[in-house]
Amino acid sequence: MQIRTSIIGASGYTGIELIRLLQQHPKAQLAHLVSPSNSGHNISDIYPHLTEIIYDKFDNLDIEKIADDSDIIFMALPHGEALQLIPHFLNKHCKIIDLSADMRINDGKTYSEWYNVEHHNQDLLDAAVYGLPEIYVHEKISRSAIIANPGCYPTATILGLAPLLHNNLIDTENKPLIIDAKSGVSGAGRSLSLATHFCEAMNNFTAYQIGGIHRHIPEIEQELSKLAKRNVQIQFTPHLIPMPRGMMVTTYCHLNNNFSIGQIEKIFQEYYFGKPFVRIMSNQTRASVKSVIGSNYCDIYLYLDLRTNYLTVISCIDNLIKGASGQAIQNMNILSGLHEDTGLQNIPSYP
Amino acid sequence: MQIRTSIIGASGYTGIELIRLLQQHPKAQLAHLVSPSNSGHNISDIYPHLTEIIYDKFDNLDIEKIADDSDIIFMALPHGEALQLIPHFLNKHCKIIDLSADMRINDGKTYSEWYNVEHHNQDLLDAAVYGLPEIYVHEKISRSAIIANPGCYPTATILGLAPLLHNNLIDTENKPLIIDAKSGVSGAGRSLSLATHFCEAMNNFTAYQIGGIHRHIPEIEQELSKLAKRNVQIQFTPHLIPMPRGMMVTTYCHLNNNFSIGQIEKIFQEYYFGKPFVRIMSNQTRASVKSVIGSNYCDIYLYLDLRTNYLTVISCIDNLIKGASGQAIQNMNILSGLHEDTGLQNIPSYP
Amino acid sequence: MQIRTSIIGASGYTGIELIRLLQQHPKAQLAHLVSPSNSGHNISDIYPHLTEIIYDKFDNLDIEKIADDSDIIFMALPHGEALQLIPHFLNKHCKIIDLSADMRINDGKTYSEWYNVEHHNQDLLDAAVYGLPEIYVHEKISRSAIIANPGCYPTATILGLAPLLHNNLIDTENKPLIIDAKSGVSGAGRSLSLATHFCEAMNNFTAYQIGGIHRHIPEIEQELSKLAKRNVQIQFTPHLIPMPRGMMVTTYCHLNNNFSIGQIEKIFQEYYFGKPFVRIMSNQTRASVKSVIGSNYCDIYLYLDLRTNYLTVISCIDNLIKGASGQAIQNMNILSGLHEDTGLQNIPSYP
Amino acid sequence: MQIRTSIIGASGYTGIELIRLLQQHPKAQLAHLVSPSNSGHNISDIYPHLTEIIYDKFDNLDIEKIADDSDIIFMALPHGEALQLIPHFLNKHCKIIDLSADMRINDGKTYSEWYNVEHHNQDLLDAAVYGLPEIYVHEKISRSAIIANPGCYPTATILGLAPLLHNNLIDTENKPLIIDAKSGVSGAGRSLSLATHFCEAMNNFTAYQIGGIHRHIPEIEQELSKLAKRNVQIQFTPHLIPMPRGMMVTTYCHLNNNFSIGQIEKIFQEYYFGKPFVRIMSNQTRASVKSVIGSNYCDIYLYLDLRTNYLTVISCIDNLIKGASGQAIQNMNILSGLHEDTGLQNIPSYP
Repeated sequence: MQIRTSIIGASGYTGIELIRLLQQHPKAQLAHLVSPSNSGHNISDIYPHLTEIIYDKFDNLDIEKIADDSDIIFMALPHGEALQLIPHFLNKHCKIIDLSADMRINDGKTYSEWYNVEHHNQDLLDAAVYGLPEIYVHEKISRSAIIANPGCYPTATILGLAPLLHNNLIDTENKPLIIDAKSGVSGAGRSLSLATHFCEAMNNFTAYQIGGIHRHIPEIEQELSKLAKRNVQIQFTPHLIPMPRGMMVTTYCHLNNNFSIGQIEKIFQEYYFGKPFVRIMSNQTRASVKSVIGSNYCDIYLYLDLRTNYLTVISCIDNLIKGASGQAIQNMNILSGLHEDTGLQNIPSYP
Repeated sequence: MQIRTSIIGASGYTGIELIRLLQQHPKAQLAHLVSPSNSGHNISDIYPHLTEIIYDKFDNLDIEKIADDSDIIFMALPHGEALQLIPHFLNKHCKIIDLSADMRINDGKTYSEWYNVEHHNQDLLDAAVYGLPEIYVHEKISRSAIIANPGCYPTATILGLAPLLHNNLIDTENKPLIIDAKSGVSGAGRSLSLATHFCEAMNNFTAYQIGGIHRHIPEIEQELSKLAKRNVQIQFTPHLIPMPRGMMVTTYCHLNNNFSIGQIEKIFQEYYFGKPFVRIMSNQTRASVKSVIGSNYCDIYLYLDLRTNYLTVISCIDNLIKGASGQAIQNMNILSGLHEDTGLQNIPSYP
Repeated sequence: MQIRTSIIGASGYTGIELIRLLQQHPKAQLAHLVSPSNSGHNISDIYPHLTEIIYDKFDNLDIEKIADDSDIIFMALPHGEALQLIPHFLNKHCKIIDLSADMRINDGKTYSEWYNVEHHNQDLLDAAVYGLPEIYVHEKISRSAIIANPGCYPTATILGLAPLLHNNLIDTENKPLIIDAKSGVSGAGRSLSLATHFCEAMNNFTAYQIGGIHRHIPEIEQELSKLAKRNVQIQFTPHLIPMPRGMMVTTYCHLNNNFSIGQIEKIFQEYYFGKPFVRIMSNQTRASVKSVIGSNYCDIYLYLDLRTNYLTVISCIDNLIKGASGQAIQNMNILSGLHEDTGLQNIPSYP
Repeated sequence: MQIRTSIIGASGYTGIELIRLLQQHPKAQLAHLVSPSNSGHNISDIYPHLTEIIYDKFDNLDIEKIADDSDIIFMALPHGEALQLIPHFLNKHCKIIDLSADMRINDGKTYSEWYNVEHHNQDLLDAAVYGLPEIYVHEKISRSAIIANPGCYPTATILGLAPLLHNNLIDTENKPLIIDAKSGVSGAGRSLSLATHFCEAMNNFTAYQIGGIHRHIPEIEQELSKLAKRNVQIQFTPHLIPMPRGMMVTTYCHLNNNFSIGQIEKIFQEYYFGKPFVRIMSNQTRASVKSVIGSNYCDIYLYLDLRTNYLTVISCIDNLIKGASGQAIQNMNILSGLHEDTGLQNIPSYP
């Protein structure tokens, strides 16, 4: 039996990537592709690359109808909007995978502070599970009705640090962890802006939301703190790379003991044993985003500086796949009792 | 039963794309991945994006062993090399799909003139079929032991012109057809050269082999002449676009009668009826390469200028897929009695 | 004595390039930089690269004040707007260099048909000179009060064809000249649009306004016809290259007689003798846009196909310099009795 | 009187940028452009963008002749080579501006350890001055016969940190300073390599020489330690951005006291008072490399995180200008008693 899926917010880049992945998924079918602003238009008129592939039109937001026709609802909306819609779908016994930030922050007050949106529904947050399947037990994800699909920066950052924090190997007490992150431009979405105008972004490299103000910070700190079982603070700077897809996060960790690089690699290998989408790229002279593009992989590179006893961890993902839509499908698979990698075995496209 | 496949010349960009497509193909398995210069090295050491996907090493060229283990041999070698190897594999009853130019020119003398390589084996050429499945009857392809897989420029050019020539709609008598072609840089391969050095190719747009000297010219003229049933001459200029993948061919055709654009579109639709990889993109204000990248599609756009009675035909392909490795798989499918699109249903990746 | 200059429409890409070139010009000074929508804002707030270089604010459109303070007015406005303003400045005895299309088409009716703007002022058109200084006698430019600064596509196209048409070397009778043009994205300006969104334009190559509808066609045909002394028709397709600056025009010309490439080159060399900005790039195996970027050069490459007797002419410019603002300065120099290349001797920046 | 200059190693990207800047310099003239491997070839054959600009050929390395004809010698050679040549030129009373690393490390032993080249000539090192004119008193530079022109990463890093270390505002005791650096690909030069092959570098972002092994580390630590008057250690990761030019360095500094961002900015403004090439870009929401490209500027952006009391410093340069050839000209100006910015007033080119 096929999983009936609908996407609310189907016309953005994460929406369109969900369509691509679900259309190729052996166990899923597309019910409603909702984009009120494009409703009634052929999807392939807005996205000609889907000509002769998707014959549907974008739908309006008819909650009753969508709920009746769907087992799982993907929400790919700006923050603050999913919050309003989720209760209606829950009442209709749909399961929700929310790609926005609305369900990620466990504490409604913290959410409100960082996102400037009131969050009166702490119950909803309490019911949600943070859908990073390499970290959380699958059982927990599979039993939840609301999956908070992680942000792109948090996914790459947390996967790079989890084995270190879980095993208490790094110093996180007095000073923040330094996290220098770089993303392809598709992370900024399809809405027009000067910063993503071709002539401004091309041949450019920019930093933005610098100095501890990016909204992924509370999400990252929350999850790192759980892993470390104490408060972890980060210093986080996001940058834009002049390319559409891909993300690299470079993290600087002071080891609290002496280890060889082989020991560190072994700890990572063991932590991610059986996880199909994390690759520990040992002994590479270069760390390269291109190796994951088009796939759901998170590649992790490890470098030990014996002069300083710092470990540099570099993690790479495709921001639209493992950082958004691919991870959402991974969560759908777990929710549905399928193998985690069903429909997600695309090999990175090279070059 | 799985088709056992080997690739001779597996370490270049078309080779690596064949590996990707065959690895994901439901009916094929990889036997030998041959690259004498890399022999003994893990494929994933040369191409880290294949880590935990391909565990094999590159093999040496051991014809006996390869022939014993393979049903179909893909040749992805520089021109002049396949020519030498093919007879050995034919003797062992392998079928050959040759991605080089060696089997494409029906007349050995013409080949020798354009490629500066002697071609003493006219029998081989006579046995080969030009593997453009949208043009040639599948039966012919399926019964041949040697498929000459078309070049990238010829594929896009011929598909754009076939319905016009087949139906005798354009003027090709006194003057050459003007074909202005643009390719992504991967067409130039992985070998290092100044023209494909990042700082030279980036922010640049170049024309090369200008003035009727590019080696795809005799191939294109041969096939267009067959379609037109008379000699067709072309004026062909290739250009390099600063991006890795993709190809656009802009062709200028003087219609020999008055037609509406609707009539022309209908002729194209009929000609390509039932062909899964050609899309006639009617009523588009822009023609865009991006819409085919990552897929085996050839998109065709048609524009009629009533002032001049010229039809501008624009055809777009992914040069590494429909222009090389995807088309080779399409030929393998036909050779093997599978549906033409088996393992080739990748949706274009956007953006 | 310095030439006092003002720019109406100073905040777009051609405006900002005019500011850069005028600021470095030894004989010019900036009076008013007009951008009503940004008026009152520091220019360096809108364009931070001008920090500590330009301390002015963008001005409002105060015609009296601007006219009093300026000898020469550069108009860098959307078409239809210069038309309205020019008479006011002429009345105040300013000289006008108009970078829009409003003064380029000699016949008001033709302008109206292609631009959908009424043009009641044929006198203005009669007074304007087409400012392509390599073609028109300088004396004519220097005595005019209105210079119609040519479009980018027309500049590259006309410079590539002028020696051939002037000397009556090519066949332009029965069929249109085929002109395949490619431009960097800055030609589309700074206004936001989906086609110039980074993720849409990057890794893409598009054709637009195909089939004889681009507005530069009447301008090109008008000037080619003057050069040929008979009506010349063109088939013109513009394309967008995924890079900010640069333009290549590939033109296909059937020679009406037999020539050697050396004879052709000599004709070009003689035609452009003493013209500092046209370079005949003989004996190059590649034609490359990068070689002109950052400069006012137009590079011309010539290739003769002896099979077909077609000459392929490739002309390259920086669309924002020789294709817009640099050429405007060149016209200013001529108007002002300066050497044509004053302030325009920037060497192309490489790589 | 003109300064007679020669370039040893004129055919690489820094060499060709020196040619461009010196050719446009009002007080310099080019004597010998030395590239033994290209000797006898027209420079404009190797670099067609210099057609009709540079008529010279590349010269052989004839020390006598070069020394006779030159006041100042620019060395743009791989490390280890300048070392051998400098004494010969000094004997002939030429002044040397060395763009390699050979003269930058004050201690020969440290140099040998990091560069795997013996350095027997400590006297030479003692005579050399580190040519970062914003930090070192000009008098010192102007009296030296050997200028060690700083590396690109060191230039951006040191300029971003100097005011903080000079004023003892940041904590550098127990832990290394974290420096995350990103460079355009031209920093890797014109020599062919897989990492700089277009299809590998495009749509990619890589980290290289990770874990405390990049050769600019001892140079940066040496200069930061002088500024701080104690040993400063760094954790340094270089990355490659898919664009030809530009560099951004993101540095994370723990303030050892409470400051407002205004106080910090004021300290930077005062430290760089009168320095024409450093711009403190206050109150910018984005830090952007594009704003310096084509110029000799170093732009510095400052962001204070009140949660952590960390200051994020972002410094941007054009790696080929302020990071190499422009800074070399700046040093030449000081050596020659000219204004520091003579011939270096190019406005950044935008977009």
